[in-house]
Amino acid sequence: MIITPFDNENPYAALSLNTKTTNTWTLKQAVDGAARAGLGAVAPWRDRVQDAGVSESAKLISDSGLRVSSLCRGGFLTAIDDDGLDDNRRALDEAAELGAPELVMVMGGIPDRDLVGARARVEERLALLVPDALERGVRIALEPLHPMFAADRAVISTLGQALSMAEPHPVEAVGVVVDTFHVWWDPDLESLIRTAGERGRISSYQVCDWLVPMEADPLLSRGMMGDGVIDFDSIGRWVRTAGYRGDVEVEIFNAAVWATDGDQVIETMKQRYRDLVLPSLVA
Amino acid sequence: MIITPFDNENPYAALSLNTKTTNTWTLKQAVDGAARAGLGAVAPWRDRVQDAGVSESAKLISDSGLRVSSLCRGGFLTAIDDDGLDDNRRALDEAAELGAPELVMVMGGIPDRDLVGARARVEERLALLVPDALERGVRIALEPLHPMFAADRAVISTLGQALSMAEPHPVEAVGVVVDTFHVWWDPDLESLIRTAGERGRISSYQVCDWLVPMEADPLLSRGMMGDGVIDFDSIGRWVRTAGYRGDVEVEIFNAAVWATDGDQVIETMKQRYRDLVLPSLVA
Repeated sequence: MIITPFDNENPYAALSLNTKTTNTWTLKQAVDGAARAGLGAVAPWRDRVQDAGVSESAKLISDSGLRVSSLCRGGFLTAIDDDGLDDNRRALDEAAELGAPELVMVMGGIPDRDLVGARARVEERLALLVPDALERGVRIALEPLHPMFAADRAVISTLGQALSMAEPHPVEAVGVVVDTFHVWWDPDLESLIRTAGERGRISSYQVCDWLVPMEADPLLSRGMMGDGVIDFDSIGRWVRTAGYRGDVEVEIFNAAVWATDGDQVIETMKQRYRDLVLPSLVA
Repeated sequence: MIITPFDNENPYAALSLNTKTTNTWTLKQAVDGAARAGLGAVAPWRDRVQDAGVSESAKLISDSGLRVSSLCRGGFLTAIDDDGLDDNRRALDEAAELGAPELVMVMGGIPDRDLVGARARVEERLALLVPDALERGVRIALEPLHPMFAADRAVISTLGQALSMAEPHPVEAVGVVVDTFHVWWDPDLESLIRTAGERGRISSYQVCDWLVPMEADPLLSRGMMGDGVIDFDSIGRWVRTAGYRGDVEVEIFNAAVWATDGDQVIETMKQRYRDLVLPSLVA
C-alpha cells in the first residue's frame, strides 16, 4: 500500500501502534491512545478485535480517523491434522471488514522433525488461500520470523524464503513483512529488501530492537528502538530506496514495556521513532 | 580432510569428542575418556590445551592414538581496537603442533551497531591470515553461528555467507563448518551443503540438537542428538552426498550434560550417534 504518509506535516502520520506494544490495553484503549498521540494508524491483533467484536472494532477504528496498517495475524499452516484454511479465511474476512489492507501471516512451527515437509505444506495451503485474499482485497503478508523460532513458531525464516513463497502469486495477493527484529542479522538483507521493493512485495515495515543480552524468553526479547543493536538508519534507507512508503508498525513483546503505562510507552515510541527511524525514511 | 573413517569396522571411528561436551574434564581426562570409549578423534578447545601445555597436549593426544579433528577456536576479528591477528597466528601454531588439520574460527560479535562494517573487517583480516594458514598447513574453518548470536558472538550467520567469505581463498586455506545447531533452520541448507561439497570447502561436520523450548541462556541450548527437533537423517544425507567423509564432532553446551559423569555422556553420545547420525552417513 502506497500512502505517502511521510509527506504529511505530522511526523507521526506513518507511525502505527501494534496492539501488542500496549498489551494490557483493550482495543478501544489502544485506538484512543493512538489517536490521542497523533499517530496515523493502528495494527490490531485478532484477539483484541474478537474481544471487542469485529464490526464494533471496525466502527471504533473508522470513527477514530486512524488507518489500519495490518491485522495480526493468520498463519500456522503447518499442522498435519488441521489445514488451518477455515480460520485463515475468517481472518481475511475480519481484515476486510476492518479495512486492513494486509493480513500478517506467521507460518509454523513444526509438528515433527520434518522441517522441509512443513514448509511444503505452507506453500500448498498458501496457494489455496490466494483466491480468497484476492476476492476480499486483502493481501497476505508473509512474515519471516527470526530463525530461532523455526521449531516452535515459524518455518519462514528469511526474507528470501518469504519472497520465494510469494513469487508464484499475484502481487496483490501475497507480500512480505520486513520486521527489523527478525531480519536485521541477514547478510543479504540489503539486496533482499531491494528485490522485495522491485517486485512490489513489501507489505509492511515493522520496527523494534534486538536486545543484548537476549531475554530468557526469546519471544519477549523485542526492545524499544534504541535499546538494542539494530542499525535502523541503514535498514530504513534500504526500505526507502526500495520504494516503500507505507506505515511503520511498532510491535514490541517485552515484559518491561508491558508493565509501563500505555501512554508513556507511546510517548517513548514516538520519540525513538522520530530520532532513529524516521530520518532515513524521509531522506 | 578425507579420512574415510566410515570404512572402518569400528562404528565410532569417525566420532570425535569436542572437549566442550565433557566440560568439567581436563584435556587428559577427555583424551583418556575418548580413547577408552573407542572413539576416533578429539576436538580440543584452546583453553584446555593451554592448561595442559601445547607440546604436552600434542604428545598426550599422539600417544592416545586419537586424531585431532579440529582445534577450537580462533576468530573474533571484529574488534575496532585490536585486529586479533597475533592471537590467531598463535592459534594456527597450536593447531599445527597438535596435528589439527582445521582451526575453527568464530567471528564476532559487533562492537557497535555497524554489522555491515564488522563483517567487512572480518573479510579484511581473514585475508591477512590466509598465508599463515597455508604456511602451517592448517585450514581456517569458518563457522557460521546461529543468527541469534549475530550481536554478541558471530557475524557469520549462514553457511552461504561463510562460503562467500571462503571463496576468494585457496581451498587448502579456508573451509566452512556445518554445525547442525547453527544451520538446521536454513531454507537453503541442502543446496548450500551441496555447493560447499562441490567446492571442497567442508571442514567439519558437527552435530548436536536444537532443544524446544530453548534454554534461558541460548548458548546452553545445545542438546544431545535426539533430544530436540533436528532431522539428522536429512542433513547427514546432504553432507554425505556432498562428499564429506571426515570426522563428526559432538560439541554440546548444556548445563545438564555438563552435570553428568563424562563417561556416561560419552556412552549416550555413542548410542545417539549410532542410531541417529551414522546411518545416513554410511548409506
